[in-house]
This record gives sequence, C-alpha cells and structure tokens, in this order.
Amino acid sequence: MNYAMVGYSGKMGKEITETFSEAGHRLVVKADENGIEEFGTPEVVIDFSRPEALKTTIELCKKYSAGLVIGTTALKEEDFEALRELSKTVPVVQSFNFSIGINVMLKILPELSNLLKDWDAEIIETHHRFKKDAPSGTAILLKNSLNKDVPTHSVRIGGIPGDHVVIFGNLGETIEIKHHAISRKVFAIGALRAAEFILKNKKPGFYTFSQILEGGI
Amino acid sequence: MNYAMVGYSGKMGKEITETFSEAGHRLVVKADENGIEEFGTPEVVIDFSRPEALKTTIELCKKYSAGLVIGTTALKEEDFEALRELSKTVPVVQSFNFSIGINVMLKILPELSNLLKDWDAEIIETHHRFKKDAPSGTAILLKNSLNKDVPTHSVRIGGIPGDHVVIFGNLGETIEIKHHAISRKVFAIGALRAAEFILKNKKPGFYTFSQILEGGI
Amino acid sequence: MNYAMVGYSGKMGKEITETFSEAGHRLVVKADENGIEEFGTPEVVIDFSRPEALKTTIELCKKYSAGLVIGTTALKEEDFEALRELSKTVPVVQSFNFSIGINVMLKILPELSNLLKDWDAEIIETHHRFKKDAPSGTAILLKNSLNKDVPTHSVRIGGIPGDHVVIFGNLGETIEIKHHAISRKVFAIGALRAAEFILKNKKPGFYTFSQILEGGI
Amino acid sequence: MNYAMVGYSGKMGKEITETFSEAGHRLVVKADENGIEEFGTPEVVIDFSRPEALKTTIELCKKYSAGLVIGTTALKEEDFEALRELSKTVPVVQSFNFSIGINVMLKILPELSNLLKDWDAEIIETHHRFKKDAPSGTAILLKNSLNKDVPTHSVRIGGIPGDHVVIFGNLGETIEIKHHAISRKVFAIGALRAAEFILKNKKPGFYTFSQILEGGI
Repeated sequence: MNYAMVGYSGKMGKEITETFSEAGHRLVVKADENGIEEFGTPEVVIDFSRPEALKTTIELCKKYSAGLVIGTTALKEEDFEALRELSKTVPVVQSFNFSIGINVMLKILPELSNLLKDWDAEIIETHHRFKKDAPSGTAILLKNSLNKDVPTHSVRIGGIPGDHVVIFGNLGETIEIKHHAISRKVFAIGALRAAEFILKNKKPGFYTFSQILEGGI
Repeated sequence: MNYAMVGYSGKMGKEITETFSEAGHRLVVKADENGIEEFGTPEVVIDFSRPEALKTTIELCKKYSAGLVIGTTALKEEDFEALRELSKTVPVVQSFNFSIGINVMLKILPELSNLLKDWDAEIIETHHRFKKDAPSGTAILLKNSLNKDVPTHSVRIGGIPGDHVVIFGNLGETIEIKHHAISRKVFAIGALRAAEFILKNKKPGFYTFSQILEGGI
Repeated sequence: MNYAMVGYSGKMGKEITETFSEAGHRLVVKADENGIEEFGTPEVVIDFSRPEALKTTIELCKKYSAGLVIGTTALKEEDFEALRELSKTVPVVQSFNFSIGINVMLKILPELSNLLKDWDAEIIETHHRFKKDAPSGTAILLKNSLNKDVPTHSVRIGGIPGDHVVIFGNLGETIEIKHHAISRKVFAIGALRAAEFILKNKKPGFYTFSQILEGGI
Repeated sequence: MNYAMVGYSGKMGKEITETFSEAGHRLVVKADENGIEEFGTPEVVIDFSRPEALKTTIELCKKYSAGLVIGTTALKEEDFEALRELSKTVPVVQSFNFSIGINVMLKILPELSNLLKDWDAEIIETHHRFKKDAPSGTAILLKNSLNKDVPTHSVRIGGIPGDHVVIFGNLGETIEIKHHAISRKVFAIGALRAAEFILKNKKPGFYTFSQILEGGI
C-alpha cells in the first residue's frame, strides 16, 4: 500500500516506517514539525505523534480520501469529535494501545477474573526510568477489566519498554498472566494490522483496535 | 465418608489422607506396594499413585461398589479402556490435574490460542527431582488445549510441587500464562471435591474434573 | 543425633521434627506451653518459637551441655545478652532467617550491587494474605545488603510462603535474582545444617547462620 | 572520540553508531561490503561484523594507530593470531559477548554454584525464532561457569533478543538468576565501555571484556 506518516522523524515514526517497509509498503507522504513532503497518493495515513498534529493529519485524509490509523495518546473530547466527523467519509481506527497482546489480555481478563472471583489479585507494571506517570495507562485499563479494585505496583528500571503482570492467588495456587513488550515494534505491528484492515474494508466508520482484532466487522 | 486410599504411603497419599481426615472422613482401606489392609467398607476409592496399581484399584471399586477418584498420570489407552468399562457400574472422576487453577487455564487457553494463532507458543513445566515422567500429564493437557503441537520443556528441580507456563510470542511482544501450585495440598483439596461429588451424585459414569467444576451435571 | 525441640507443637516445630526424623535423628526432649517431656540426653536444642520460651531453652542447654540452634524472631537486646552468656559454655547458632538461599543471596548481593552500581535497582517481595508487616524483614535485609536505598514493593497474595526478587537494570539489559521459599521446610533444612555444624564443631561460641554457610570456622 | 565503524550498514553497526552518537562521539570512518569512506582520523575502530572483514579492520587500526573493539563471533585460531599480533602495537578488546550483565553473571556464577553445590541446577535460554543454533553460545558459557553439567532448555519464541535463566533448587527453596537483553543496544553499550577503556588506557595489549569490567588493569 501507499501510506502517509505523520510524525515521521519521531521514535514511533521511525519504528512504523521500518515495519511498513519490511512488509513491502511505500511511504509516499512524510510529515513532521518541519513540514510535509508529498511524493504520491496515500491510501492510509498513520499518526502516532501528538494531539497538535491532528489538524494536519485530518487534512491529509480529506485531501487523499485516505483511511486513518491513529495511536496518539492524550486526545481530548474535541479531538474525538473531529475524528468521528472524519469517520463519516473514511475508515478511522483509533486506540490508546495498538499492542495486539494487551488487547487480547483485555478481552480475556474479565472472564478470568470472574472464574477466580474469590482469589486475591494484584498488578505489577514495569517501565523504563524515563516514564513519569504511574501507574501506566495500560495498568489502569487492565485493572478496569478485572471489575474490582486491586493494588497496583509500578517498577521503574533502566530501559524496559513495558511489562504488565496480573497475579491471582488463593491458599493453594496462583495464576499469572503477563504481557511483555519486546520493543516499540509491537505498536508498529498493530498499526500495520489496522492499516491492512482499512485497505480490505474501505467502509467509512469509527473502529477501535479491539474491534478489528475480534474480526467479524 | 469411608474411603480407600491406594498409594497410601506415597507423598500424595499422605497429603490426601491428611486433607480427608481434616474434613472428618474415615480411611477404611489402605493399599500400597506392600499389600492391602481392609478395616471397613469404602464408598469411594482414591488413587493418585502409579499405573501399575490400577488393577488393584479397579478390583477394590468392584468389590465394594465404590466410586473412583483417579489422578494417576501416565495412564495408557488400555488403562482408559479399563476405567471406561468400570464407569458403567460406578462413578469415575479422572483428571491428570485436580487443581482448580489448571482447570481454569484449560478453559481459557483454547480462546487465547485462537486469538494468538499466528504467534509462536511453547510450554515449560517444572517439577521436583523425584518426578519420573516427562512431560507432565498436565503439560500434555495444556498442549492439547492449544489445538496445535508446541515444544514442551521439562525442568526437574529440588522440591517444586508443579509449575506450568505457556508462552506465546510474536516479533514485538509475548504473553505468558503461568500456573504455580504452592503445595500438593491443592491436589488433595481437588480430590476431596471430586469425592464429595461422587457421594452426592452416585450415578455411574466417566467424569472429568473440569465437568465437576463447571457444575450442571 | 539426639535433639530437644522447644515449641514442639507449633507449625515450625512440626516441620523441623519431620525434617530431623527423615535425616535419622532422634527427638529426646519435647517442650511446649504445656510442659516438658524428657526421654534422653539431647546434644542440640532447637528453638524456633517465641521469645517467652527462651528461659526454658537456656535451662535445657545448661542442664545437658547441649548446643543451641535459635531461629526465634523479635528477640530483644536482653535476650541476646542471655544468648551470648550461654555461648561461653556451648555453641549457639542464631539467625532471623535460616533459609540457606536467602543467606547465600545476602552474601552475593553486595558484590553484585557493586558491579552494577550505576544500574537502577528495585525489590519485590510477595507473601500470603495473612502477613501483616510490609516490607518483610527479609526484604529489609536484602535492601541493606545493596548498600543503597531502593524502592521496595510488597505483594500480598493467597498462601505464598515468601518470594523475594531484586531487579537491576540499565538501558539495555536487566539482571534479576529471585529467592522462592517452597514451604516452611526451607527453614527446617537450615536448622538441620546448623545442628550438624554444632555436632562437628562443639566449640563454645556465638555463630550466625551466615558464618556457618561460609565455612572455615 | 573519533571512531571507525566496520560493518556500518548492518544491524549491530547501526545500533553502535546510534549509541556512540548519543554519547557525543564522531564517526569518521565508515566501512561495509561496498567500501570505505574516510572523513577523519579514528582513535578507535569498532567491528561487530563478520570474520571476512577482519583484514580491513586490522589495516585501519595500523594505518591510524587506532585501538580495536572486536565483537565478531565465529573467529578462528588464525584470526586470534592476527589480533594478538596487532595487540603488540595497539590495545585490542575482544569478546564473544559484550553485554555487561552476562559478564557480571559469569563472574558471580562460579561462587553461587559453589555455595549451592548440592542443589539441582538447570538453564533455560529463550531467543527469537530466527536463531538457528541451540543452546546459545552464551548458555554454554553460563553452563561452563557452573563447573558442572546441567540440563539446558532452548525456547524459540517470536522476536526475543535473548534471555538466560539459571535455576538452582533444593527441597525447600529455589534461587533464580536471570539475564534479559532488552535490545541489541546492550552490546552497543558494552562496545562503548570498551572504547572508553582504550582511550584512557592506550597501552598496547590483548584484553577481554571481562578484564575491563573487573578494572584494575
């Protein structure tokens, strides 16, 4: 496919570009703070940058009638309104977490938590020393999926991209379910899957990454 | 209840006897390699020993019209045939693993494996140095629940009662689901639950421990 | 050896008695809150009970010129004075943690911490839901052995006897060193090793469990 | 420092160049299969490529009187002879594993193995699905450092850069020591440390990475 990358020179931008290249796709529009370079007609626009870039991103989608994969965090309600408006004309896939594994855990955990409802549960999340917020947004998503409040521990060590463990236990046994992000590539692979969904699907609409994983849309 | 214990002097035999005593039940038949002592009429026979003991076990069930809880591993197809034959006249509850947690994992894993069907998967099981069979019967159950063949590693270390991990991974992330038995007591508690099911139920038939946990029989 | 067990009917007392029997040793004096039974002459007295029992314990040591293995926690300075006085006439081995593994970790960690002194470090300890203090005394010992202050996380889950992990990490890698207590048996095995040291050594003196493990005394 | 990079366009070459740039160093000579570009005078040459590049690497060291950091694997005895000859005139740092953590583990393990000599031990190494050899060279180094033969398990999953765990256990407890490589950056950081050693030291000689970590040279 031909795609546009907004936030081209950032760390996620580089990771996504590398992953899409390996899959044989062509980068035809590059955008970052310094401007936009256009070499071709994108079928999909990818944006994992900052809320400030959203205006540019939406303009590109409209100009080329391209679908959108958006993984930008800290979007506000007005940003969501703009994305929903856009989704009337092109397919838009949005998530705060494009890791396939975390979305699979969010799907499994409510059932697991229900089967083990009289067991204790706690969450441990581990990230690099530069992460300032604690607990991680993902740990909060996991906790919410358990349908009960559980203690959450935040470990900050070196360069760890992101590990999340949910531990359940009774007097005789424990069950742990752990997600480990090997690298930022995890999010790039998720973006690729979302972009491929858009190419196949083409129907305008607002989709979450979880819906795509579940299929049947 | 009155119960018979086959493999009375083994480690699991002692654990089960202790757990059943704490619950107020009476040991009326003891069997091990050295012979059989009979002091009363058992309603249930418990056997967590070795395949070689199966003949004695089945004879005891027939002699007393007693139900059977069998947790012996490394049973062969001919052993299963003998158990199915027995189950025409008395209730038989069989499992390679009488822990609640493992049975919860067996319920969750087919769904997880399906959601992650293009990921790699491997199993690691860790048991005490005295365990002779490898892989463990539980590891085989876990593998079968994945609906694909995956490599299985058997670690034998000191006094570990039994740990099982299923690892899934793609290029960017991994998900691990791990069961840890804190002590053998977990299996004795499961055996007790199965024996109590037999006392209430009494109907001849071949039951898995999973079916009992799910209820509705 | 012939040994005396103070706190005979407690959980640790039973665990130690079982471990010593398996090793072929003979229990010749039993003491608990209900009194003392003496069947023979002990060479070693074992006490893992409560500070209140210390007087009885010391009297037994004097009466039989027996060495002492003491694992009682919450000893006060006056208790230590009484033990040091006793150690002028018989060998006394004292520790707040008779696990061989934890003592090995305490020996290794200062070196590891020094080799990794520019790495981040954190500690996670996990215990059963009934443990009231946090962090565990052992976690504090581990932290002190690192010669720097590190964040410590306390997880409370089901029936876990006690796990301790020290995680070190820089931007490119992590090293974890983890101790897992399978059961109370871990402390009984340590007590056995200390008792065997006393039998071989016989020289009066006050010894820590770490010194015994290092040998060369 | 000014440095030369042999194998500039390979995955390790890119990782090292990025790490050295972040530390403020200047790449003044680039070499790969397509040729050599020279923009300045290197003080150190870095080579993590293939044995075939060794001739070029040695010529660059001689031309500029530059020290060498070499992490190439599969070197033969004749290659080592050439490196030892070179080390008469410039400092040469060689290792098959430039991870600081693995070298720290290799230093600690003989002591740990000796303290736990009557415990069981096994090794589990986990790498990406593309790794063809098993067990990993690093697992073999770890096993050798234990001074006894232990079972080694090789797990191949997705994109894992490289995890190694040594598990020790007796009947009551286990100790695990685990190394986790977050990314190839681990080796780049090691190469940087070796290059900085060369700049400070300057004395000709053949050094292993372990010797540098131990200091005191």
